Amino acid sequence: MEDNKKIITSPLQGFMELLPEDQIIFNNIKNIIEDVYEKYGFLSMDSPIIERSDVLLAKAGGETEKQVYRFNKGDGDLALRFDLTVPLSRYIANNFHNINFPFKRYSIGKVFRGERSQRGRFREFYQADIDIINKDNLSIINDVEIISVVYDIFKKLDFAKFTIKINNRKILTGFLNELDLEGKAKDILILIDKIDKIDKIEFLKELNKIIKDKTKEEKIFDFISVKGKNDQKINLLKKFGIKNEEFKNGLEEMIVVLKYIKDFGIDEKYVSFDLSIVRGLDYYTGIVYETIIDDYKNIGSICSGGRYDDLMSLYTKEKFKGVGVSIGLTRLFDQLKNNELLNNFISATKKNSVLILNMTENYDYVLNIAKELRENDINTEIYFENGKMGKKLEYADKRNIPYVLIIGENEVKDSVVTFKDMKKKEQEVLKIKEVVKKMKK
Amino acid sequence: MEDNKKIITSPLQGFMELLPEDQIIFNNIKNIIEDVYEKYGFLSMDSPIIERSDVLLAKAGGETEKQVYRFNKGDGDLALRFDLTVPLSRYIANNFHNINFPFKRYSIGKVFRGERSQRGRFREFYQADIDIINKDNLSIINDVEIISVVYDIFKKLDFAKFTIKINNRKILTGFLNELDLEGKAKDILILIDKIDKIDKIEFLKELNKIIKDKTKEEKIFDFISVKGKNDQKINLLKKFGIKNEEFKNGLEEMIVVLKYIKDFGIDEKYVSFDLSIVRGLDYYTGIVYETIIDDYKNIGSICSGGRYDDLMSLYTKEKFKGVGVSIGLTRLFDQLKNNELLNNFISATKKNSVLILNMTENYDYVLNIAKELRENDINTEIYFENGKMGKKLEYADKRNIPYVLIIGENEVKDSVVTFKDMKKKEQEVLKIKEVVKKMKK
Repeated sequence: MEDNKKIITSPLQGFMELLPEDQIIFNNIKNIIEDVYEKYGFLSMDSPIIERSDVLLAKAGGETEKQVYRFNKGDGDLALRFDLTVPLSRYIANNFHNINFPFKRYSIGKVFRGERSQRGRFREFYQADIDIINKDNLSIINDVEIISVVYDIFKKLDFAKFTIKINNRKILTGFLNELDLEGKAKDILILIDKIDKIDKIEFLKELNKIIKDKTKEEKIFDFISVKGKNDQKINLLKKFGIKNEEFKNGLEEMIVVLKYIKDFGIDEKYVSFDLSIVRGLDYYTGIVYETIIDDYKNIGSICSGGRYDDLMSLYTKEKFKGVGVSIGLTRLFDQLKNNELLNNFISATKKNSVLILNMTENYDYVLNIAKELRENDINTEIYFENGKMGKKLEYADKRNIPYVLIIGENEVKDSVVTFKDMKKKEQEVLKIKEVVKKMKK
Repeated sequence: MEDNKKIITSPLQGFMELLPEDQIIFNNIKNIIEDVYEKYGFLSMDSPIIERSDVLLAKAGGETEKQVYRFNKGDGDLALRFDLTVPLSRYIANNFHNINFPFKRYSIGKVFRGERSQRGRFREFYQADIDIINKDNLSIINDVEIISVVYDIFKKLDFAKFTIKINNRKILTGFLNELDLEGKAKDILILIDKIDKIDKIEFLKELNKIIKDKTKEEKIFDFISVKGKNDQKINLLKKFGIKNEEFKNGLEEMIVVLKYIKDFGIDEKYVSFDLSIVRGLDYYTGIVYETIIDDYKNIGSICSGGRYDDLMSLYTKEKFKGVGVSIGLTRLFDQLKNNELLNNFISATKKNSVLILNMTENYDYVLNIAKELRENDINTEIYFENGKMGKKLEYADKRNIPYVLIIGENEVKDSVVTFKDMKKKEQEVLKIKEVVKKMKK
């Protein structure tokens, strides 16, 4: 209540807030994602934003714990969710008696990480997740259905050529075990995860610090650098002659995955078997995914995930297996905007909307017209305020509204409207039925 | 990281978390609301959940301040939004140079109030708001457009007969001024606001404590109890012979509002001019609304709002006038469920979805069928896991999926599917084109 202190009206740093035109585009992208999720039969799940801190931090270590928004109130030690996966685990542990498995859910919502805000890093951001969870077992075809969902989404978004990179953690760890590097696997995987950001010399230097065995280091580098088409990579890997069971099991899975990718009708040039994909040291145990925009590799992965076999064990003794993927929607939007890749969304926006410029006091007529348009699924806004035609047309122009209906005394008298195409700068006098017909085309 | 402490997996008290079947219904209701908002040309606005405490609490007094989730991190003194109106004011103050006025926005999102949790009270809940804001002036027809939006929504939701109650604060305060009760207006309005919850005797007793003038007390009671149809009430009020300018101005506005209600094509039996509607002591300065379900008055108002002329003044020197309404979506859903009013949503659910029960290894065939269905806007889930037909049909049954496609080796051989209507318990062998045709009906 300090009246003389100036209140800052900008949103907090790291919190995205859009002007209406951008918000429309953001919502379009969100709707496309949601629509594909629903098309595959995923069920909507909406968990609270606030959770008990011990739930959220049961597994999370150092970095996450520092980033989380945590506070005390009423029920005690509370925190804001930092992803949509931990709440999923808690939800399943709490509800598994009432859930029909396999459980395919999607969640699109805000999550919070109070990290130091740098360009492209958000403290509040949308994630759009899907997961498939089953008791005891989960067929590997589900791992490919996830790829198919991601493929459909980015084909529909259609802003650029993308590549879904896939790998299998079992192949990597099996290979490292074969080299008797089990004890150093963690550090090696962390280094491999960074390979996109460093060059070969630096990579080998760092690798040497960990392993101190030139032969093995070269082998690892050759392994993760295997080139060729997906099938060729499989054949090359077979030639490594590795006996390790986990490796062989992982390679078998990859062969099946590549077959299913064909069955799903996914164009293979959008999918790359990439042995350097690790996905951090998270909970992943099998197939892992990343998705990049080919011409904007610097953006990094815009959609990541994988198979996990032990995620719910913190909350329940029941055994669940799962596979899932997460699209970082806020970051994706921000990057598309920064790289001027939103153009085709802008033109697709608001196709189906009109603005009525009312120049009469005969509201009965005007409102009836609006009603008929809305009943025909046309978004219809009425400019009610007084003012000159020029000012009203300027409003339509600034709002990017494609079609304007002008209604004055003459239009009321003749039971017509003046239909103006704002782009073509043409206008004609039409009956309302004709307007509906025109708009529905 | 305390491994031996049992983690509680239920959501916090006062936080709604739904099972998938209920979530579908909740989303349907949310989508209907959003669709009507868009049909009227309202623009989506999505503000952060976290704000600076001084922004959120600039006006809020005692109760709100106690309820707000407030904490310190990084940027300092932060809080979770407790409504969608304060963020709207900040948004306009921050962006008015880039907004085209009149600005019609909708926001549907979660807000937070850490009040003591009682039945029907939520700490996290969705609000679905619309507001129309303009600089300097805003025609009163906008107040009626808001009524029209609310009317369309509840007609579409179609769960019961409802009544939109409207009043004008100017009529009430003008009348109290006429009685020289200006100094006591605040206490009197607070009491009138409670009239639904107390009987006549108690009301008059409380009123007497404030006024101590039997004649004036009876006059007030007669005034707010005026009966009859809307037009009759107007005529009765005219006969009070009140000279106060604010009263006369308010009555004139009401006459115009009732005319516009007719122009909008709103069935008058859904709208009631009710002189006892106050809407607390919030920021309202003119028309105010509440909406009740006729047969469930005890639920209270499910949609409230009104006209405000000074809301943004805390954040900017520019003058804005606005009118808006808020649907308490979480509470509405909860009450509909408790009163078993969700039935017609359940039958409308998932009309357009099929489950494929796959009994073959020929994924190519199965996945092609799924692709064709999805391309025809049919939500299609595939049951991939191994298992007997009985178990798979049980899954379809529990999930309330209306149509099942069974695909075994025979179906693959003959390029057909077995189409099963789960409700009618009938099945027939069809080509996929025939299935699409059937589903599209």
